[in-house]
Order: sequence, then structure tokens, then C-alpha cells
Amino acid sequence: MAASSPISPLAPKNFPRMPALAGARLASAASGMRYKGRDDLLLMAFDKGTSVAGMFTTSRAPSAPVDWCRKHLVNGQGHARALLVNAGNANAFTGIKGDKALRDCAAAAAKQIGCTRGQVMIGSTGVIGLLLDSAKITGLLPALAAKLNPDAWRAGAEAIRTTDTFAKGATATAKIDGVEVRINGMAKGSGMIAPDMATMLAYVATDATLPPDVLHALLRKSVQNSFNMISVDSDTSTSDTVMLFATGKAMHGAVLRAGDPRLRDFRQKLDAVMGDLARQVVCDGEGARKFISVRVTGAASGRAAKKIAMSIANSPLVKTAIAGEDANWGRIVMAVGKAGEAASRDALSVRIGGLPVARKGMADPAYSESKVTAHMKGQEIEIEVDVGVGQAAATVWTCDLTHGYIDINANYRS
Amino acid sequence: MAASSPISPLAPKNFPRMPALAGARLASAASGMRYKGRDDLLLMAFDKGTSVAGMFTTSRAPSAPVDWCRKHLVNGQGHARALLVNAGNANAFTGIKGDKALRDCAAAAAKQIGCTRGQVMIGSTGVIGLLLDSAKITGLLPALAAKLNPDAWRAGAEAIRTTDTFAKGATATAKIDGVEVRINGMAKGSGMIAPDMATMLAYVATDATLPPDVLHALLRKSVQNSFNMISVDSDTSTSDTVMLFATGKAMHGAVLRAGDPRLRDFRQKLDAVMGDLARQVVCDGEGARKFISVRVTGAASGRAAKKIAMSIANSPLVKTAIAGEDANWGRIVMAVGKAGEAASRDALSVRIGGLPVARKGMADPAYSESKVTAHMKGQEIEIEVDVGVGQAAATVWTCDLTHGYIDINANYRS
Repeated sequence: MAASSPISPLAPKNFPRMPALAGARLASAASGMRYKGRDDLLLMAFDKGTSVAGMFTTSRAPSAPVDWCRKHLVNGQGHARALLVNAGNANAFTGIKGDKALRDCAAAAAKQIGCTRGQVMIGSTGVIGLLLDSAKITGLLPALAAKLNPDAWRAGAEAIRTTDTFAKGATATAKIDGVEVRINGMAKGSGMIAPDMATMLAYVATDATLPPDVLHALLRKSVQNSFNMISVDSDTSTSDTVMLFATGKAMHGAVLRAGDPRLRDFRQKLDAVMGDLARQVVCDGEGARKFISVRVTGAASGRAAKKIAMSIANSPLVKTAIAGEDANWGRIVMAVGKAGEAASRDALSVRIGGLPVARKGMADPAYSESKVTAHMKGQEIEIEVDVGVGQAAATVWTCDLTHGYIDINANYRS
Repeated sequence: MAASSPISPLAPKNFPRMPALAGARLASAASGMRYKGRDDLLLMAFDKGTSVAGMFTTSRAPSAPVDWCRKHLVNGQGHARALLVNAGNANAFTGIKGDKALRDCAAAAAKQIGCTRGQVMIGSTGVIGLLLDSAKITGLLPALAAKLNPDAWRAGAEAIRTTDTFAKGATATAKIDGVEVRINGMAKGSGMIAPDMATMLAYVATDATLPPDVLHALLRKSVQNSFNMISVDSDTSTSDTVMLFATGKAMHGAVLRAGDPRLRDFRQKLDAVMGDLARQVVCDGEGARKFISVRVTGAASGRAAKKIAMSIANSPLVKTAIAGEDANWGRIVMAVGKAGEAASRDALSVRIGGLPVARKGMADPAYSESKVTAHMKGQEIEIEVDVGVGQAAATVWTCDLTHGYIDINANYRS
């Protein structure tokens, strides 16, 4: 299914040229577990001394890999030597058998890499509730380990896809203390994308030398404005995972806290990579034909601004109207109203594509339906709402809701 | 659009035979405001002494009619002589002009009925943000008043539809103190259906003799288990309204409190009418092909049970899987997990159509995909989840998410 779906019209033109990153090697393979004719297994190996930070789904029914990573990262931070990801089976809601399958995989990977099982991070994505046949993975690990090389980022990003129609990668170069460091990231995700660990897998690595606690603080901050600001369908996966690895190969001075001013450029570039990956996930939203940004201003708090923006972004009626290129802005007002946060109906203003639509509780006299409709026909839709009660703002990203979403999800397992 | 859509396959076979109800008369007409070739205007007249109770949308951007009814019903209760409802224009987010249009309509109706403006309840449903041309309504009021008659319930229910594919009515006879009383109700609604005043208009009348405070208490209780337990698309309208009128024509003894044991039969019959109307709204969910009941047991509280049940009922992934007749129960687990309420993953059990699916955190050894798939092919889908942490339960009703929903909502205004 995934492999044969046409590529999203919102996909970036090219996969970025991902340079090698000192201390990290990758390899992928095809287990045949679910997908035919494509890789579905990724092994990454990290040199000794690699720090890692992770953030995970808020689901109360997390997958076995999420449980595993949480257990081996104290407060979301620690050290790692390997990452093993499979696509097609989420190993979620699989009970003790799923846990056993995971431990078999971790042990097999640890043996190949020469580390402890707890240093192997695991990610699984795909169907929930299906038992994972670990033999199909463990049998491939010797060959994977033999293939590890620093230039396989694109193949890795291809391997972790499920219904994704394109591989998602992003890269940047930052300076710490005058020393160049790289940041490479990949992500997968196109359904079950909802806020707060936006339901996907994302793995970002850097050769910077950063201790686990600093890495974790940087990751948390960056997730707030990237993966936590996207939604495709308001559903939250059991498997959401974002991990940041630092191999420590770059020869800059010691950094002991996330607020260190020498990290300014690094923080910006990390945010750029994370934001890029998050927006690529939206661009691959199942059935997506339009990329939508929703900016809410004038809210009572940042939390309220985000909640209102998400209420708009998750409204099926707003999303179908946009799919139909219909400037039905009344539904935006509806979505503001249902968010349950302070908003002044009579001070509310709405702009679409920068054009005036509504203000002071009614249609703006300057509203031009033909101009707004012209904007609606484009691929990038901009909604701005000022709710008129405060100073806080938030921007979230989503996509439209189309027949493609129904097609993909009504027949996912068949 | 609405008029030409095929009737929902989930529609009841017939509109019920609605008997006359002493003290209430109805008339409908076609304003031509939005729909062609059908009535879109309902006037109801109530005899003097009619009590009324109302409950309204939780939206922070309520429509002008919601503001109006709230203003004239102190604490949601009072007396009324008329109800005027138009379909096609919600008179929402229309500012002071919308308010003026509403007052013109109320004044014209009051003149015809011979009451004060504040005794005229108003309902409007349709497009948000469009100015209401009150002259198209006020001009018809003399003719409507002349046509008022006690046997026009079905025509009334037809007139208040928007995208509804069938008119929704329900009726019951109850005894209070040995005296027979009638309960007649009608509802409209098929999109923007979400919990807590499930986004629709519903008007129920009885000839029982009940003071406004008793009526309000009865309504509140009955809404909790009917209209507040349904969801089509999680969107909340600006116009949600449920009103209960009591004309006071029945000659039973005085009832001074909702808990009066003489109201036992009446309460049951009211619940039946309200529940019937609420389920009919779900059966007319935009694009609905399957009626879904979700029962959650073993929750920590009633509120938690409802929140988990709604998380399942509102999940686009669950709803599309059901549309595809796919027994993808992993998505049910996902939806339990994302609800944010206490649930024990490892004690969770799931049944579909009464058949065992999952228990103790994994697929049930007795699970038969072919049996469950056979159930999925039916029109009524039953999902039961025990979350394994407490004793509380809740049942909610929803429908599947199909191409029809996209078709209807991508082109609603065209």
C-alpha cells in the first residue's frame, strides 16, 4: 500500500544531500515482514560515548519499544550504541510476547554492535496488536552490521516509512565555539499525527559533544515548537518517539548546560532541522493535498493559543472545507468557539492568506470571496485568527482532509 | 444539496405517527433563502401558560439565536408562546446586524401570536457568518400564523433540516398521576455533532403540567444520556439547542419537583424520546453507513468512561477502519491510550459485536478475525472496552467516517 501510493503533492522536490556524521553509521534491509520489495529495517550504530535523549508518546497504551526506551533512558536521557527500527509492525498491545520479541531483537543487535542490550534503542511502527516475529529481524542483524556505513541516511529514512509516500530527511551545519558540527535527522509519520509527541518516529543525530542532560533539555525545547505543533488527524500513536543522539566527535569546548550562549547557533539549527522534519510529516499527512498553517494571536496564554489553533487544525469541517477549496470561514469561527478557551466573539478577527475575512464579530466589509478563494486554490493555506483577549500566540501546522485519507485508512491492513 | 442527497441507509423506516399535542400548533413555509422546493421555516405556537427549559451550545462563539434564548430564559427556564426556526442560515457570527435581523423576526412573530418578543424562542441553523435577510422571514409570518395547526409535526421536522437526509421525530405517551400525557419531539443535525449539546436543534413538547424549574431539571438529566452522548465529527456548532416545552394541558395533580416519584414513567418516556432523537441524529451523520455504539466499562469515573468512549468514537482512524469494515482493533487501543484517562494497558479487554478481541494487554487467544469481520459488515457495530481500573461505565453513539462526509463537507456552500 504505502509503497504504491502516489507521492504527496506537498513532498519536497528532493531528499536533501545528507553528509556523513562522524560516529554514526547506518544500514537497512528488507525483512519481508509486511512490505514487499523495499527495506523495512534500519540499524544505526553509534561510537562509544554517544549521548542520547528521547521523548515519547503520551499514550496510556504505549508500545513495547516505548516502554523499553523509557526504561533504559533515565529521565529521558542516557547513552546509546545502537538504534534498531522496523516498519510495518508497531509491536504495540502485544503483551509479554511482544516484550519477549523486543528483547530478542535488542540482544541480537547488542551482540553485533558489541554493547549491552540497554544501549540498543528500539523503534517499531505499523499495525497495532500484531505479534512481532523477531526471527525475521534477528536473522538479518549480522548482515546489517556488516553493511553499516556513514552514508546511508537516505536509505535509512526510506526504510522506516509505513504509509509515508516519501522519505523525510533534514540536515544542517552549526558552529559551537567556532567548531563546525553537523545535525542530521530523519522522520516517518503520516497518520495518527496529533500534538504532544506528534505520533511519529524521528531520529536526529549530531557529532556535537553534549552530555545527556544538555541534550535532553535541547530536545524538549525544540519539540515544543516542532513536533508538538503539528496534527494530521488528532489521533495519537502508541509509538511516538523523538530521539536526539550526540556522538561527541566534534572537538569544541565542554558544554555543561543547554542555556550556554555558545549553543545559540546549534539551538537554531536544531530547531530548523526539527521544524523541517515536522512540516514534512504534515506534508505527508494521509491524503494531504494542502499544507495549512494556523496562527492564533491575542490569546490569554500560550497554552490557550495552542489549544485554539489545534481546535481549528483538527476540525474535520475546517479541513474538508479546505480540501474543497471553499472559503467557508464560518467553520473557523466554530472551531474557535468549541476550543473552550477565552475568546471574544465580538473582537475576533480572521484572515486567510493575509486577506481580511472577519473582524469585530462579523464578516469584514473588505472581505473579497473571490480573492480568498484564489488563495484557497493554492497548495499552502494560511489561517490567522486574533481572539482578542490577550497577547499570547501559537502557530500549528496541519493538512486538509480528503478522500485520500479515507482510502488509505479504510483499507490500511488489507 | 441536502434535499438531493440520498437518504441515509441508517434512517428509520418511517417517520413516526405523531399525534396532536394539546396546546401546541405548527406551520411551515418555504422562504427560498437557501433551499429550493422545500420548506425551511417552522413556526410553533404554544398556548398561554406554557413552560420552557433550554440547554445550549458550549461554544464561545454562540449564534444570535442562542444569545437570544439564553437572555429570555433565566437559568435556562421560563415561559414561551412561540418558536421560530429557520434552516440554511445559522445567523452566527453576524454581529449587530444579525442581532437586528433576529429582533425583527421575533417582533413579527410576537405580533402574529399576540405575545411579547421575549416569549418567542428562536433557532437558526445553516451557514455561519452569512447575514440573515429577515424580510424573507417576516413577510411569511402572517401566512404561517394563519396555517398553524396541531397536526403538522412531520412537516415541521422536515422544515428544520439542513444536510439532514431524513426528518427526525419521536413520540411517546406517559402517565403522570394516572393521567395520560404526550411527549412529541423533533430534531435536526448531521454534521458538527459533538458531545455536550451535540450540535443540533431539538425541540420536545409535552402537554404535561410542569413548572419551568422542574422542566429544566428533567431536561438536564435527560440530555446527559442522550444528546451529550453522541458525536459525528467532534465539531461543536455555534447553534446547539435543545428545548423542552410543557403546555400544561394535562389535568394531573401539581408536580413541584423533578424527583417526584409520580414522574417516574414520564422521565423514562422523556429519556426514550430524547435518546431516540439523539440516535437518529447519529444515523444521519454526514456520509454515515454504519451506526456505532461504544461502551466503556471499568473506568475510574463516569467522566473518565465518557472521555475514553468519546476518544474512540471521535478517532478518525477508528471511524475509517469501520467504514472499511476492517477489524483493526489496534486503533481502538490507540484511542483508549490517547484519551488521557486512567486505563490499564495490561488489563484492557476489547470486544467487538460481543466477540472476544483482546484481553490482558494483547490479542485474545479466542479472537476470530473472520467472525469479527462478519460483524463489521453489518450496519450496527458494537464496541465494548473494559479499561480495568474501576467500576464506572458510559455508552456513546457515533457513525463511521466515509467518502460521503468529505463529499458533503468539501462542497457544503456550493
